[in-house]
Amino acid sequence: MTDAAAPVPERSASAELVGRLIARGWTVAVAESLTGGLVVSSLVSVPGASATVRGGVVAYATPLKHTLLGVDAALLAAEGAVHPEVARQMAEGVRATAGIDGVAADVGIATTGVAGPAEQDGQPVGTVYLAIATPEDTRVATLALAGDRAQIRSQAAAAVLEFALRCIRPNSP
Amino acid sequence: MTDAAAPVPERSASAELVGRLIARGWTVAVAESLTGGLVVSSLVSVPGASATVRGGVVAYATPLKHTLLGVDAALLAAEGAVHPEVARQMAEGVRATAGIDGVAADVGIATTGVAGPAEQDGQPVGTVYLAIATPEDTRVATLALAGDRAQIRSQAAAAVLEFALRCIRPNSP
Repeated sequence: MTDAAAPVPERSASAELVGRLIARGWTVAVAESLTGGLVVSSLVSVPGASATVRGGVVAYATPLKHTLLGVDAALLAAEGAVHPEVARQMAEGVRATAGIDGVAADVGIATTGVAGPAEQDGQPVGTVYLAIATPEDTRVATLALAGDRAQIRSQAAAAVLEFALRCIRPNSP
Repeated sequence: MTDAAAPVPERSASAELVGRLIARGWTVAVAESLTGGLVVSSLVSVPGASATVRGGVVAYATPLKHTLLGVDAALLAAEGAVHPEVARQMAEGVRATAGIDGVAADVGIATTGVAGPAEQDGQPVGTVYLAIATPEDTRVATLALAGDRAQIRSQAAAAVLEFALRCIRPNSP
């Protein structure tokens, strides 16, 4: 595969994450706003991903974060879409959204933030919240990224994969 | 923006499509299987995309094509996920899935197919179906792509953007 054919950043982090998820027998689903599909696409790029990746929701328009992911509508109205609790609820919500026969996905991955060029909901360009929900807990991270729209989106996608690798350790030998 | 920072293929087709959609006052939503988020990410990469892009669903696991996109479960059971009628129903279904206050998205874009490395549902690697649903009609296209997994996915994503540009002409001057 040449660089020109590589559609997503951080394939190696994706491959490592997919491997760890399969080793644990965990399924995963992704809820994205500013990254807009980069994260789930990166996971799907890994051969064999179908053993763990159920899919994802790109809730780019704010109301879809409520209707498709179950984020509290009052929270969205009060705080806007760029908020750590929104990221947390997206990660937890997408597990159920991607449920099959009543069985939620084991892991939810979420991104929300401001890619620019304009600020959003009073938050400056580069503000990004990430969340990882596992059967054990949900963790949220905050980023303040610099760069243009493409750089902020690709950095956010790479960061959430690295964050997932910190939250989901390899199985002990 | 450098090539290294460009996360998706065919940005120029994306920008052209976003421009045409905005000019028509149409909103758009994307339903993806093998492309796994590449298409919606490509649209979101365009500055100002929020004026038309509502979001998307990556229904990678087959049952999610029914639960999230409304594809007929009997069709999926009989034909599998790689079928032109599945693509059609994905494109039409995602318009409602991405509805806001009861208003469906105007345009639905869908991809389903076999990226490999293994065949799926009796279909060979490289078989891809694309669909574009507009307020006027729904059109389906069939591709037989060659290449590795990454090449098939990126070619399918590029092809569906070009197909959308054929289905959604510029407004007359």
